[in-house]
Amino acid sequence: MKKIILIPDSFKGTMRSDEFCAIAEQAIRVHYPDIAVVSLPVADGGEGSVDCFLQAMSGTAVTRTVQNPFGEPVECRYGLFDDGKTAVIEMAAAAGLPLVENRKNPLTASTFGVGQLMVDAAQHGATRIIVGLGGSATNDGGCGAAAAAGIRFYNKDGALFVPAGGTLCDIDRIDCAALDPQMRGAKVITMCDIDNPLFGTQGAAYIFGPQKGATPDLVVQLDDGLRHLDDCLKRDLGVDVSAVPGAGAAGGMGAGMIAFFGSELRRGIDVVLDTVGFDRHLDGADLVITGEGKIDSQSLRGKVVIGVARRAKGTGVPVIAVVGDIEDPLDSVYDEGVGAVFSINRVAAEFKAIRGFSKDYLARTIDSLFRFLKITGKE
Amino acid sequence: MKKIILIPDSFKGTMRSDEFCAIAEQAIRVHYPDIAVVSLPVADGGEGSVDCFLQAMSGTAVTRTVQNPFGEPVECRYGLFDDGKTAVIEMAAAAGLPLVENRKNPLTASTFGVGQLMVDAAQHGATRIIVGLGGSATNDGGCGAAAAAGIRFYNKDGALFVPAGGTLCDIDRIDCAALDPQMRGAKVITMCDIDNPLFGTQGAAYIFGPQKGATPDLVVQLDDGLRHLDDCLKRDLGVDVSAVPGAGAAGGMGAGMIAFFGSELRRGIDVVLDTVGFDRHLDGADLVITGEGKIDSQSLRGKVVIGVARRAKGTGVPVIAVVGDIEDPLDSVYDEGVGAVFSINRVAAEFKAIRGFSKDYLARTIDSLFRFLKITGKE
Repeated sequence: MKKIILIPDSFKGTMRSDEFCAIAEQAIRVHYPDIAVVSLPVADGGEGSVDCFLQAMSGTAVTRTVQNPFGEPVECRYGLFDDGKTAVIEMAAAAGLPLVENRKNPLTASTFGVGQLMVDAAQHGATRIIVGLGGSATNDGGCGAAAAAGIRFYNKDGALFVPAGGTLCDIDRIDCAALDPQMRGAKVITMCDIDNPLFGTQGAAYIFGPQKGATPDLVVQLDDGLRHLDDCLKRDLGVDVSAVPGAGAAGGMGAGMIAFFGSELRRGIDVVLDTVGFDRHLDGADLVITGEGKIDSQSLRGKVVIGVARRAKGTGVPVIAVVGDIEDPLDSVYDEGVGAVFSINRVAAEFKAIRGFSKDYLARTIDSLFRFLKITGKE
Repeated sequence: MKKIILIPDSFKGTMRSDEFCAIAEQAIRVHYPDIAVVSLPVADGGEGSVDCFLQAMSGTAVTRTVQNPFGEPVECRYGLFDDGKTAVIEMAAAAGLPLVENRKNPLTASTFGVGQLMVDAAQHGATRIIVGLGGSATNDGGCGAAAAAGIRFYNKDGALFVPAGGTLCDIDRIDCAALDPQMRGAKVITMCDIDNPLFGTQGAAYIFGPQKGATPDLVVQLDDGLRHLDDCLKRDLGVDVSAVPGAGAAGGMGAGMIAFFGSELRRGIDVVLDTVGFDRHLDGADLVITGEGKIDSQSLRGKVVIGVARRAKGTGVPVIAVVGDIEDPLDSVYDEGVGAVFSINRVAAEFKAIRGFSKDYLARTIDSLFRFLKITGKE
């Protein structure tokens, strides 16, 4: 064994993905002191993406003060990579639910700050802007971000305004002429792991509105607003997002990313794997170790473990997953290319009783696996 | 990989050792259909030994009605192996605590029935009689068993009697002349996994008396009786067991086995491994899989896993343990020769919530280990 790739997700509530990598590498080196260990602590494109990219790749963290969902100043970080050519932005940094706890209001919450970060990155010279959706407090269809980038929204009186969830229905005309030229020249990639459409009973308002504070009445109002936005996008921008899976992600931000910024929506983990050069790292690797807090066969969408396995499948490089809990059966996990799955649990005890031991358990589980390989005389 | 030995202990409360073997073999055969799998479901010489020997070796179960600790009839099983040359008897079958629940009385409880079983085996032609101590309700120093085999105990009035815990002090003279001749010719091996001396504060009465129903006053009386027995054994039989570790096992039965039957006391697992021919099976084996319900570094004495590892150590055949719970650290377990340890736990949940899944978890854990071996391309 000459080269091992470590590419785990975080274990929610117990361990960051970079901690997983450090622990696993140390455990491996006991048995293989001279092995090449490539640590790619990643995330699925949701929360923590920027930090993970910064740990997995050389890059720079940029800190900017932009508007939070209610127009107040908030300090946000995004990442610049490839000599500043690639920016990675988390929507949640400027428009996330944690920023508005106790005063959720999807009628007024805006993605304006997200647009400010995108423009800032473009003006820094980023020509590839990756935006991770998810965890948003907003339902504005990305209109706030668009406005921050120069796109103009007029009401029926011809007055400029920045539409939010409660005022989408007031849009009379959208004008993209003043879109920031750097933004216009940038390739925007959106990381999105849900398939919900923009509106309707499976749309942004119905499915995600309630957790953002929408009452049943408000859900209907928000849904009407998104339908109206869709009409405007068709008419003024010539873009039809009504049937695009993921358009309803993050309060319709998926739709806005497509319509306003010409973005594609991609699985977060695929964007992450491309960005960290996973395929290149697979060259010459003997084993890939991935992991996550819990694995099951049901929710395979956008998971790090599955994304990793799909990429490695066919290359001949085996993939194992070292996880917290396992929800059997794992047939479809194996079908996706995961070769074997091991739980770090070492005693029959509730999570709250053993969560403090997770890092120790991980170290010991990795140790056991490499002991096993060694004693079976295969290495 | 051509040959695997399965030699687990039972998982107390969830799985017999023969069930472990069947499950593991099935899981292994998915990956290696043609591999030789040697199943040796064993026990540590305590409870369940007879059944385990019967499962691990071809033999015959013999059922006999003998006396329970209070002289009442009880049906017992023992095993005959090697064409009847070897007998395996569990002391607990005729003198065990479960036989006297709710009426424990170490003053009167007798090992007479154990002696009856031994004599029966000898008269069947067994020349090697293995007796597993443990779980006894008695404190008679083995005098009951000796009496059943023909050894005579006289009180100071010259009257024959069968000493029990409360009457050991009445022994005035012991006469071995009438010991059953078949018994006299048999080699008796005692499986004993505790080191307690016959008497004193670490002796049979002080340490094990209370769980057999002895109050503090009775403990002193029982201890005095064992001291007196020791004096008699020295004087009449010329045997000094006072300093022999294990003489205090099973209410002094350890002492009696040595003094009355010329037995040696051996670790149960070592006797078991010899009897099932473990060393011979190791020839040509690629891997030994052992296991038990819980593994830790503290209580290594007489455990199946440790006994197996000690035997395999130095032969070059690797040993792994697949267990229920792991109590870290495992350093001394590794030092004894266990190459790697894996827990079957797959979720963070209390034992009572997952005990019903133990067999399924075992199957999946074994499956994962062989998946791992296969995908790492070493097989």
